[in-house]
Amino acid sequence: MITDLSPFFTPEGIVIVGARRSPGFGFILPIALQRQGWGDRLRLVNPAGGELHGLPLYKKIADVPGDPDLAVVIVPAPVVPEALEEIGARGIRHVIIESAGFAETGKKGGELQEKAKEAASRNGIRIIGPNCVGVINTANRLSTVEVVEEALSPGPVAVIAQSGVFGNILLDNLYQKDLYISKAVTLGNRMDVNECEILDYLRRDPETRVIMMYLEGAADGRLLKETLRRVTRDKPVLVLKSGRTGAGRQATASHTGSMSGEDDLYEAVFRQSGAIRARSLDELVDMARVFSTQPLPAGRRLGITTSSGSLGALATDAAIDAGLELPPLDPASVEKVRGVAPRWMNVRNPLDVGPSGQFLPAMTALLTDPNIDMVLSIAVMPFAVFREFKERGIEVKDWLGTAPELRDLAPHKPVILCSIGDQGFVSDLDEAVGPDVPVLTSPESAARALAALYRYKEMKEAGR
Amino acid sequence: MITDLSPFFTPEGIVIVGARRSPGFGFILPIALQRQGWGDRLRLVNPAGGELHGLPLYKKIADVPGDPDLAVVIVPAPVVPEALEEIGARGIRHVIIESAGFAETGKKGGELQEKAKEAASRNGIRIIGPNCVGVINTANRLSTVEVVEEALSPGPVAVIAQSGVFGNILLDNLYQKDLYISKAVTLGNRMDVNECEILDYLRRDPETRVIMMYLEGAADGRLLKETLRRVTRDKPVLVLKSGRTGAGRQATASHTGSMSGEDDLYEAVFRQSGAIRARSLDELVDMARVFSTQPLPAGRRLGITTSSGSLGALATDAAIDAGLELPPLDPASVEKVRGVAPRWMNVRNPLDVGPSGQFLPAMTALLTDPNIDMVLSIAVMPFAVFREFKERGIEVKDWLGTAPELRDLAPHKPVILCSIGDQGFVSDLDEAVGPDVPVLTSPESAARALAALYRYKEMKEAGR
Repeated sequence: MITDLSPFFTPEGIVIVGARRSPGFGFILPIALQRQGWGDRLRLVNPAGGELHGLPLYKKIADVPGDPDLAVVIVPAPVVPEALEEIGARGIRHVIIESAGFAETGKKGGELQEKAKEAASRNGIRIIGPNCVGVINTANRLSTVEVVEEALSPGPVAVIAQSGVFGNILLDNLYQKDLYISKAVTLGNRMDVNECEILDYLRRDPETRVIMMYLEGAADGRLLKETLRRVTRDKPVLVLKSGRTGAGRQATASHTGSMSGEDDLYEAVFRQSGAIRARSLDELVDMARVFSTQPLPAGRRLGITTSSGSLGALATDAAIDAGLELPPLDPASVEKVRGVAPRWMNVRNPLDVGPSGQFLPAMTALLTDPNIDMVLSIAVMPFAVFREFKERGIEVKDWLGTAPELRDLAPHKPVILCSIGDQGFVSDLDEAVGPDVPVLTSPESAARALAALYRYKEMKEAGR
Repeated sequence: MITDLSPFFTPEGIVIVGARRSPGFGFILPIALQRQGWGDRLRLVNPAGGELHGLPLYKKIADVPGDPDLAVVIVPAPVVPEALEEIGARGIRHVIIESAGFAETGKKGGELQEKAKEAASRNGIRIIGPNCVGVINTANRLSTVEVVEEALSPGPVAVIAQSGVFGNILLDNLYQKDLYISKAVTLGNRMDVNECEILDYLRRDPETRVIMMYLEGAADGRLLKETLRRVTRDKPVLVLKSGRTGAGRQATASHTGSMSGEDDLYEAVFRQSGAIRARSLDELVDMARVFSTQPLPAGRRLGITTSSGSLGALATDAAIDAGLELPPLDPASVEKVRGVAPRWMNVRNPLDVGPSGQFLPAMTALLTDPNIDMVLSIAVMPFAVFREFKERGIEVKDWLGTAPELRDLAPHKPVILCSIGDQGFVSDLDEAVGPDVPVLTSPESAARALAALYRYKEMKEAGR
């Protein structure tokens, strides 16, 4: 069996089997690949022949010239096994099957999937899918699904998803949250290639620093545990797992044909292998933003600075629940802050600067405090006050600092911001310090993301 | 003691004690009140005399003409007790103290607060604050804090917060989430008026249908329980409580001078009194959006329709965990959906319509299904597809329906949407069906909000 998955991500040439003139994937995908710069390495197949988007439509796969090494299959499910035979005969060994209508639809579809699997195996073909939207590699602008231009800007985060729509949706949204990806894979029904092989591939991928994965169930729990243990030693793996409840498992079984296991077992797999489990989709994204931009903390000691005592309290609760500590500040830090603080300010941890506007001195004190391993700064401000600042030419960086400034103070301490309120205010903050210092909008999720950084660091050290 | 709190919200005239020419609340607040239409009922006091924003500055409170019945105090903490004596002598019995520097700053501040309390009590004065930003009443455009214009559009949700900045921030943000308020109160150090009195006031307030409350601790747990039990019989009370952990309690004690109690006791208070506790700030807001727009469900049977199996599974997990059921669909509904569904669609609950675009038939089937009490529709779509739709003139309402259409199908069933992805897509959805059908962005939070609706309904019935 071929174990090299690289043609899925860095093919020499691509054949689309099922390109067509009527609306749908078969029509859109060639346009997308042309726009992404693949026009000269793209071959289209349709028995009707003719032309599409200025490219010839070859009637048979056998007719395709050149040395394509990746096929994308979009023909209806019943003709997929036959297509695989032809693809095999043409010498192509890597195939993405986007077509739906297999095991996810029931018994008949399952039989069809078995037939396709046999055809692939007979021809030494590796398959991603079926019932997926394939892969994205931002380094060479390969995307077997039409995504927005911005989602193809390269970044350090790899995405593993099972279903097509879900993967697609995430990509539409992530760049709007300053999260850019290296590679994305939607596994669909996992007829052949599964999450473990992809995890190992991404472990070796120099462009990937953080892996985020949505999982419904693993074919082999022991293999998943072993793989995760190996991968998390090098790179953090953030997991969102559904099928926690019986009904949730049934829901997943319905659409990618996978049998989900019991949640307790998965919980143990993740814990023992050093994978970080997110509680919700929002939290998964927040964690990915923090893991992809921040160093690992030396310890569990969190310093919080806030302009809202209430939000500081909510973040503190979440941090403590997640296993962090909020130690007292070093006397030297207390001294420093007292020097600039109004009389009413209670200089402690969490450090509530109230309406004083002393965000930067407070953050500076925490970042340079030897008792503090990581910093969460909750920067909120009534919009009326912010607007007045802006009218007077006072910009966010004037009172909050810039990402390089903050980073220089403590290169080895994670620092993240949390803000809530008017959307214009939040995006101004993001412009000033993001993406190097991520600006999250949930105090609870921000605290949990920092706790996850610490847990990952602890796990890595224990493993050595 | 005066028990009528209405002058806090519907005063005849307002005196600002501590209006001033230098930047700060004393400068901004008079402008804000003038802009809100209170110029003719506004009197300003500052010992320096002269004029501010075209209004005379009276040197003493005794000099103020007319019949003002509400005073807003912004003078430094040490002179507050004296100001209260003068306010009392002038016959004003309702005072909002915005000044900070009291119990929240430590022992000395605590003594000052006691002194102010005695002065108030001697003069029969009711106090909101100190260390707060007072109140908002959108019905008469009264706001003792400068908020953005849009936050003053009347709505059905009342907000109780303890701290000023927090209340302010929420208001900056809520209208951007289609949530409009009736009244808001920030209680600060709760020297006198506390959350229980406000809860009772809001219970009788005809403009308030839903109450959302951020709480750090109650002075009297038994009173809170009794009050909540009474109020929740009429109106839902959504609570976000911090101080769950020791460090969180310390954090809250630092800034509003309240002693927080043990979390288990609060948990019991909320459960026994029918209040709904949110897990996070985001969830509090989501719940308020759902409670303020949706009817209570007849039962716990949830129908989910989704275009992403993965998101459907995540929502299902959250719904089951929160006590809902996902029953099978009625055979007639299955029949109806099969009539329009592609062959591959698995017609069940959750109902995954995949890329078929059959959102409206699926929602229609669930809304009219006798086995279903409430509907969550997860409408996601790759942005590339959405953009193509738009270019062809196909709008959201064409495939998703409009709020009145959906409502007419089942006036008594809660229905909410969840969407993720490109922000433009999500706001287009919101324009089509919101705010009557709220569009949330977290599948887990959406499911929990529906579960909370059901729990509230059950509690109300049990109480009768």
